[in-house]
Amino acid sequence: MPNWLLPENIADVLPSEARKIEELRRRLLDNFRLYGYEMVMPPLLEYLESLLTGAGQDTDLRTFKLVDQLSGRTLGVRADMTTQVARIDAHLLNRASVTRLCYAGSVLHTRPSGLHATREPVQIGAEIYGHAGIEADAEIQELALNSLALAGMQEVRLDLCHVGVLRALIANDAAARGQEAALFGLLESKDVPGLRAISNAYQPATRDALLALPGLYGDISVIAKARITLPALPGIARALDELQALAELAGSVKAANVTIDLADLRGYHYHSGVMFAAYVPGLPNAVVRGGRYDHVGEAFGRARPATGFSMDLRELARLMPGAERKRAIRAPWGTEAGLREKIAELRRAGEIVIQSLPGHENDQDEFDCDRAVEFSNGNWIIKILG
Amino acid sequence: MPNWLLPENIADVLPSEARKIEELRRRLLDNFRLYGYEMVMPPLLEYLESLLTGAGQDTDLRTFKLVDQLSGRTLGVRADMTTQVARIDAHLLNRASVTRLCYAGSVLHTRPSGLHATREPVQIGAEIYGHAGIEADAEIQELALNSLALAGMQEVRLDLCHVGVLRALIANDAAARGQEAALFGLLESKDVPGLRAISNAYQPATRDALLALPGLYGDISVIAKARITLPALPGIARALDELQALAELAGSVKAANVTIDLADLRGYHYHSGVMFAAYVPGLPNAVVRGGRYDHVGEAFGRARPATGFSMDLRELARLMPGAERKRAIRAPWGTEAGLREKIAELRRAGEIVIQSLPGHENDQDEFDCDRAVEFSNGNWIIKILG
Repeated sequence: MPNWLLPENIADVLPSEARKIEELRRRLLDNFRLYGYEMVMPPLLEYLESLLTGAGQDTDLRTFKLVDQLSGRTLGVRADMTTQVARIDAHLLNRASVTRLCYAGSVLHTRPSGLHATREPVQIGAEIYGHAGIEADAEIQELALNSLALAGMQEVRLDLCHVGVLRALIANDAAARGQEAALFGLLESKDVPGLRAISNAYQPATRDALLALPGLYGDISVIAKARITLPALPGIARALDELQALAELAGSVKAANVTIDLADLRGYHYHSGVMFAAYVPGLPNAVVRGGRYDHVGEAFGRARPATGFSMDLRELARLMPGAERKRAIRAPWGTEAGLREKIAELRRAGEIVIQSLPGHENDQDEFDCDRAVEFSNGNWIIKILG
Repeated sequence: MPNWLLPENIADVLPSEARKIEELRRRLLDNFRLYGYEMVMPPLLEYLESLLTGAGQDTDLRTFKLVDQLSGRTLGVRADMTTQVARIDAHLLNRASVTRLCYAGSVLHTRPSGLHATREPVQIGAEIYGHAGIEADAEIQELALNSLALAGMQEVRLDLCHVGVLRALIANDAAARGQEAALFGLLESKDVPGLRAISNAYQPATRDALLALPGLYGDISVIAKARITLPALPGIARALDELQALAELAGSVKAANVTIDLADLRGYHYHSGVMFAAYVPGLPNAVVRGGRYDHVGEAFGRARPATGFSMDLRELARLMPGAERKRAIRAPWGTEAGLREKIAELRRAGEIVIQSLPGHENDQDEFDCDRAVEFSNGNWIIKILG
């Protein structure tokens, strides 16, 4: 096997793509900062138990394991950064106030999430800790949507759902308690015969509501329909109010197309409130996922309300148009002070100046060299190339 | 053991430090680009054989090994990026012209290089492929020195050395051939008795030269001294000419203090020409290392001349003064269109605007909020805070 071959679903990022990723990375981080988010950089490597704590359990099979020579213990290479950032909020920063954090970094997966998915996504995201109200979810949703806008995404579909509806139904019916995982699974696969079977012993109101949930899918009018169809439990009313507020806000921020799906409960076991996913043309899977998961810091000794989102920079960059070839200036090589000062001056002004190394004056350039530094009448001047 | 504990020599980077690293990263990458360097992003993970190919052999014991579920083969997490970038030049880009590449990314080490060293440096560097002349080395040295200047380093000591001197001596003496590794070791440790013993059977000129090398250390005048002391072999003359050109250039670029050390040969077995290391106050080890290693691409089927440097962004950022607390504007939370537009306008102008979430109006801010958005006489205005 040739030694330049890379493992499956692992790839180099070449200059034109790297440029797009780098530019998008900066644009998104700068935007997070304009909202007051502070960047943190958790490590690539942690003790496995820490990485798989709480919300991280899901990532066990996706996490590469290593033995630490220094401690003899098992380490994991992070497959997701959200648990790490929650640990930083809970343990390291330990602030009483609202904390806004953001992050960007590579994660590794033992197996790709799909046939063409990379095993090394570049995860970027933002989180608010310390505020339980819908206002924090609204800010996170706004940030997720304008991140997509900054990536040039024109048509965005935002799917909203809420774990509170099903949780309220189950809490209200003794027969349903203990069957939470099964119910979430049946709803996730919209398995109505299965729901009919499992809910035989439930109260009629619970049963009717469960059977109605897979149909409560569509535009914002679904919320009004749900208010009539579902029992008037306080938990359900609150969930629907929150969905309504976020759907209205999403409509006003962007020309985003909002859909509500009361049976979409992926990731329900670590989420605690509203959840959202954004879709863009060209990608079957959600490009952004986010939502509320108030228990994330619990495992680190400090359960603070938490809401956030994350996405894969590489995937998003791939959907963007190619970066323009950048204009540059060619200059001869030389140690003469006047030439060196001319080149330095151009670079200070932000120009890309490429010095031709001796013997390579006619090399093909990767940059679009439309000007050249030349010596003329005792001065170094810029000549426009034809 | 508490689950928030991190492995030894592994740490989170908190906001103030992360900000410094991120700013320095951008500054250096932007500067590389002004010189025409294109960024590439090699993967965190490769087949172990590829990572340890050629110049990568040194890194075997520092490389974390993993089993790939997809192929059953052994993977390594990169401990160094230079071999990866050489692979990209040799195999993927495969250009005939001079290629300038740069990179920045985390690497992992099984063991720290020192008691307080991190096992997760952020390696940043630049490389020129395809030009064998000293001009490329000069550009790389200039870029390394102005990278340190961009990091605010005031006092820099640049150590220059060259593998060509010893290689020429050995090539010229049949008795010395085959003892290359031993000779490099003795010179590295400046072991004069050892050199005396090993060189018993050598030609007198070789012997005298070897014994003189450990004393050929000091400022640029060492080069003139070496021209008299060392035999007039073409390889030695060329090495001394190259050192002289680079030393003069370094003196002209920066107020860098240049030293020459003809017996300093660390990394000799993958270097092929000039080597340099830069030192700054506060760090015992070199902050930047670089030099020529023309054989680096050979293992990937295409040995191109190559010269470059790299350094650890985290280490460099730690030496920089703390970032100033950034001024920001506080704003109330609300969905009112006028307020939202006012906030969006301020952010478009580059201002950090932090919306106070309800109930958290009096939270202590991590930003220096010196202004606030307030409603006054029917308008949203900016009020200066006392």
